[in-house]
Amino acid sequence: MIILLKDKVNENQVKNLTNWLEGIGFGLHISKGQNHTIIGLIGDTSRVDMDLIASLDIVETVKRIQEPFKSANRKFHEDDSVIDCGGVKIGGGNFQIIAGPCSVESEEQIVGVAQAVKASGAGMLRGGAFKPRTSPYAFQGLHEKGLELLSEAKRVTGLPIVTEIMEANHLPLFEDVDVIQVGARNMQNFELLKELGQTRKTILLKRGLANTLEELLMSAEYIMAGGNNNVILCERGIRTFETYTRNTLDLSAIPVLRRLTHLPVVVDPSHGTGHAYLVKSMAMAATVAGADGLIIEVHNDPPHALCDGKQSLTPEQFDELAKGIQNVLPFAVR
Amino acid sequence: MIILLKDKVNENQVKNLTNWLEGIGFGLHISKGQNHTIIGLIGDTSRVDMDLIASLDIVETVKRIQEPFKSANRKFHEDDSVIDCGGVKIGGGNFQIIAGPCSVESEEQIVGVAQAVKASGAGMLRGGAFKPRTSPYAFQGLHEKGLELLSEAKRVTGLPIVTEIMEANHLPLFEDVDVIQVGARNMQNFELLKELGQTRKTILLKRGLANTLEELLMSAEYIMAGGNNNVILCERGIRTFETYTRNTLDLSAIPVLRRLTHLPVVVDPSHGTGHAYLVKSMAMAATVAGADGLIIEVHNDPPHALCDGKQSLTPEQFDELAKGIQNVLPFAVR
Amino acid sequence: MIILLKDKVNENQVKNLTNWLEGIGFGLHISKGQNHTIIGLIGDTSRVDMDLIASLDIVETVKRIQEPFKSANRKFHEDDSVIDCGGVKIGGGNFQIIAGPCSVESEEQIVGVAQAVKASGAGMLRGGAFKPRTSPYAFQGLHEKGLELLSEAKRVTGLPIVTEIMEANHLPLFEDVDVIQVGARNMQNFELLKELGQTRKTILLKRGLANTLEELLMSAEYIMAGGNNNVILCERGIRTFETYTRNTLDLSAIPVLRRLTHLPVVVDPSHGTGHAYLVKSMAMAATVAGADGLIIEVHNDPPHALCDGKQSLTPEQFDELAKGIQNVLPFAVR
Amino acid sequence: MIILLKDKVNENQVKNLTNWLEGIGFGLHISKGQNHTIIGLIGDTSRVDMDLIASLDIVETVKRIQEPFKSANRKFHEDDSVIDCGGVKIGGGNFQIIAGPCSVESEEQIVGVAQAVKASGAGMLRGGAFKPRTSPYAFQGLHEKGLELLSEAKRVTGLPIVTEIMEANHLPLFEDVDVIQVGARNMQNFELLKELGQTRKTILLKRGLANTLEELLMSAEYIMAGGNNNVILCERGIRTFETYTRNTLDLSAIPVLRRLTHLPVVVDPSHGTGHAYLVKSMAMAATVAGADGLIIEVHNDPPHALCDGKQSLTPEQFDELAKGIQNVLPFAVR
Repeated sequence: MIILLKDKVNENQVKNLTNWLEGIGFGLHISKGQNHTIIGLIGDTSRVDMDLIASLDIVETVKRIQEPFKSANRKFHEDDSVIDCGGVKIGGGNFQIIAGPCSVESEEQIVGVAQAVKASGAGMLRGGAFKPRTSPYAFQGLHEKGLELLSEAKRVTGLPIVTEIMEANHLPLFEDVDVIQVGARNMQNFELLKELGQTRKTILLKRGLANTLEELLMSAEYIMAGGNNNVILCERGIRTFETYTRNTLDLSAIPVLRRLTHLPVVVDPSHGTGHAYLVKSMAMAATVAGADGLIIEVHNDPPHALCDGKQSLTPEQFDELAKGIQNVLPFAVR
Repeated sequence: MIILLKDKVNENQVKNLTNWLEGIGFGLHISKGQNHTIIGLIGDTSRVDMDLIASLDIVETVKRIQEPFKSANRKFHEDDSVIDCGGVKIGGGNFQIIAGPCSVESEEQIVGVAQAVKASGAGMLRGGAFKPRTSPYAFQGLHEKGLELLSEAKRVTGLPIVTEIMEANHLPLFEDVDVIQVGARNMQNFELLKELGQTRKTILLKRGLANTLEELLMSAEYIMAGGNNNVILCERGIRTFETYTRNTLDLSAIPVLRRLTHLPVVVDPSHGTGHAYLVKSMAMAATVAGADGLIIEVHNDPPHALCDGKQSLTPEQFDELAKGIQNVLPFAVR
Repeated sequence: MIILLKDKVNENQVKNLTNWLEGIGFGLHISKGQNHTIIGLIGDTSRVDMDLIASLDIVETVKRIQEPFKSANRKFHEDDSVIDCGGVKIGGGNFQIIAGPCSVESEEQIVGVAQAVKASGAGMLRGGAFKPRTSPYAFQGLHEKGLELLSEAKRVTGLPIVTEIMEANHLPLFEDVDVIQVGARNMQNFELLKELGQTRKTILLKRGLANTLEELLMSAEYIMAGGNNNVILCERGIRTFETYTRNTLDLSAIPVLRRLTHLPVVVDPSHGTGHAYLVKSMAMAATVAGADGLIIEVHNDPPHALCDGKQSLTPEQFDELAKGIQNVLPFAVR
Repeated sequence: MIILLKDKVNENQVKNLTNWLEGIGFGLHISKGQNHTIIGLIGDTSRVDMDLIASLDIVETVKRIQEPFKSANRKFHEDDSVIDCGGVKIGGGNFQIIAGPCSVESEEQIVGVAQAVKASGAGMLRGGAFKPRTSPYAFQGLHEKGLELLSEAKRVTGLPIVTEIMEANHLPLFEDVDVIQVGARNMQNFELLKELGQTRKTILLKRGLANTLEELLMSAEYIMAGGNNNVILCERGIRTFETYTRNTLDLSAIPVLRRLTHLPVVVDPSHGTGHAYLVKSMAMAATVAGADGLIIEVHNDPPHALCDGKQSLTPEQFDELAKGIQNVLPFAVR
């Protein structure tokens, strides 16, 4: 971290600052120029509150050289993390497709979809039981009943299950869940992240709608700071001015994240685009760009889905997509 | 709500849709054009899942005519709501300045600031005890101890207190708090909103960093749907590409919200700009534009604030600001 | 186009509107509901000023059913357009890589790069002679001299040349240029677009930094309205809040545009990401997603490039990229 | 400017860089830390291509200390610039309201509006003759005829006239125009800016829809670099995700620009919000925030305006607004 002081600062104030920095354990490298004094901090600056320093009266700007995340940082963990998801591995060359409906609606629906996607090669089953909806009047999911139906589908097919949590108090209900998803709107629900850090469950952390990749990594850091290193990152589209798509899928997030972190990166082209006709091309592009996995919405009857039917594939479309993925996976850039 | 069907749809499918809509209680007005069929819904469409209808195979687009929020809607509640905040009123011509430090740091600090801002005319005291921070390694607030110090400052000065909640489980600690703030990052933490809807506490709901005003009103609706109508809305700046300011304060939100809703609207120019030198001009502009109140960060020693010192005013600067507000308040556009 | 009138409008005003609409040649389909009157326009609404109608006192909203672009619309031209670029074809299954330096710097540089990229399979040569730069003090290109050097490289290698125009007055200098590029900042320089519509040159139109795909198509429409149908669209990244990349490359633009228009779509992963290490993965992803071509920055000595060296590949890196493209091209989703 | 070099760089490469920097006239202050070497540049860095240096292989990052604009910079020109507009002054305490219709439509219209707004206190008349429109099929203005009608209105009322230019070739037609406007979409049409820099006309430069204030100032710098210092800056709303307003008016731009530059700053609340009902509150807020002037759309018959009627005030509404401005002008924060 480099601290650039303002012109003509009081020597006493500088002394106060340097004493304080040394007091909290940093080595300092001070360089006085004609107009500006620069202080370089030597030590672990990920634990420093950069905003606090930037706000000091005598400081012009502060610039990080190291990234502010540490447990998630590839610099301190060169190899890809391989994360266990109820017996299925992801990361480090293990590519997985997670498929299933937006919402769990009935036993027939969820078991039927689970069997279909398994037959096409999906490695995990997704399905929402607790649904974050903009309107309090919209369908909010089957809750406990939905989790039970997911367990039933897991019992029948053997597929590990992935589903979203919206509140730490619900954790006891998620015992049979293999991968707990944190949705985009909760990416910076720090209290929830802290609680998940206290578990050893695998967490699928989705990027917020207007969040940077550094903020995504800092949220992963919240979970890992509690001792839970089982984190999967998910790009699911960001908010832009474009209207033909629901969100803009940021596929460059894949190689950027792969450089910055050892955690697996999966892509959700269903939410990321909002339209079934865009899912296959974006899924294949994500695979070639080096993703560790995909999350795909599949519904046995998209027009009658209780949520997000517009972006769901039929089992037949999913089967075709899964075959396409196999064609390009050998050429993925990693 | 108007539903526009696609060209050449199957008559049976249309029948299915109209039967279903009538079954859930809507009157229908159907108009067949040369190419397109249009269905108008008559009834309370705020309780309809617009996305679900839009996702049907036979539907081209759906357009709301009514707003999707109801309890917050001025159409059904013409007069400004006047909200009680521990004995102090806001809204309907009652203008309030809420002032205080970003974080509660010590008894001396919070009581000192409270006395100073009261003397200058502030009607409420703000101060953070639970702080949402991007990094798990940054200062997160004094927690319970912070709430106790706020209570002490309230006891000494009589000012009602405003402070942020980050998790519903903490509610028992907030008994002595007069106004509970929901921060920008939790604006769509729907489970928290639902829990707050079960209380009768006054809630100050901040707009999310990349959220629309309709989304803000839908989040207010979550609280009100639980029966708690004591909601104050807060514009605190949105994320844009501009870098000279921390956020972009959207002052047009004031007259837009005042037209759409009867709830009071306050503005936070401190977070909204991120720089002390911008606070006075934006506070005065917000007042003239018709805001019901302001939230201003004031710290007795900004350069040593543990958080957001860059944007805090000194008590002297706040006093000058408060005088400026009095000058323009009579000319506010309302 | 559907016009929704406000509640309780004056019958005379409605009559005025319908007379005017019929007068300019539309058939009307009018439907009166309990509260709302809806007017459907029958005819070519791409030539109607939607904003003008929306601004009328009696109009609640206007909704297009048809897209506002016509010449570029795939509905009226089902087959892919195949565009000639100095003897090389693009579109309709003809995939092309356009490669070369950001700026033309010297004969040795441009001829050297041209020979290298041709050997690796590039179909066209790019290089900037007129450079749009944010600062008036930055290097602005070699201008006429740069165009001469491009012609020399074309003479030596036979590669058609692609270069940017910034002002219609420069057109006479572009006689030997095969494809004239309109940069992102000029996407809505409508006077320039009109002038280019008067030529029969092939135009490569880049999407603006914060423009929607509909706006891009409307700008193409400006060129085509003048009679010049030789237009290639280019996705080159949009401005978002992300900072690890210079822009956010929107690869979903490929399948969206391919559905909306018959014009070829190329992708620029060099400007779209701003970093050489991201170019290969994004180029391969764009290919799989169905792009008709790529634009790649290649420089013989990236660290000494006078512009954008950070994102340029070496000829060796480009050769590897070109081989990767061949691997995945057969699996492209189209 | 501070250049931070990467870890373990080759001494020869550093030598090359420092020699080059000294060769182009900079004094250097070099500081070697344990891991990092920092080079401080002494001299006029506004003329340095920061991107070029950042792209060098051995450079980690580059940080400006000085702003990249010079002629527009308040540091080198402490006093407010006072700009002449056909005899009317703006800036340095001279507050002006520019009012008139979006488009010039007829002599009766433009002269009538001119007389009305003059009577209410407007200092200049605006009206569009060349209109930038997204669609080539929308009304594009009366062109030469429109300019003639503006001159006629000027002759009758004595009000200086403000109107938009879209192409440098049209300059001869603008001889009688007092203030030439550059629209948001042309803010980075650098060739046009350079041509305007060669004139001594007063230029009203509007901020682009997704541009930062630094980019706006760099575009002003293009004009001033040619020797034309008669530049007025205009905030007219930026593109955000909000949909209740057409754009988001960034009023914090006023105090930010007033700190950074000596040029006058005016605000356009009509385009900035897109709705007549928002204009008065935003105009008054802009005034209190310290703007040097306002641009307000006024039309004698808004519902029949050929363009942007939705956001136009009637002469009566404008008169009321002008009175409101007088009430708050004495309290403006400057």
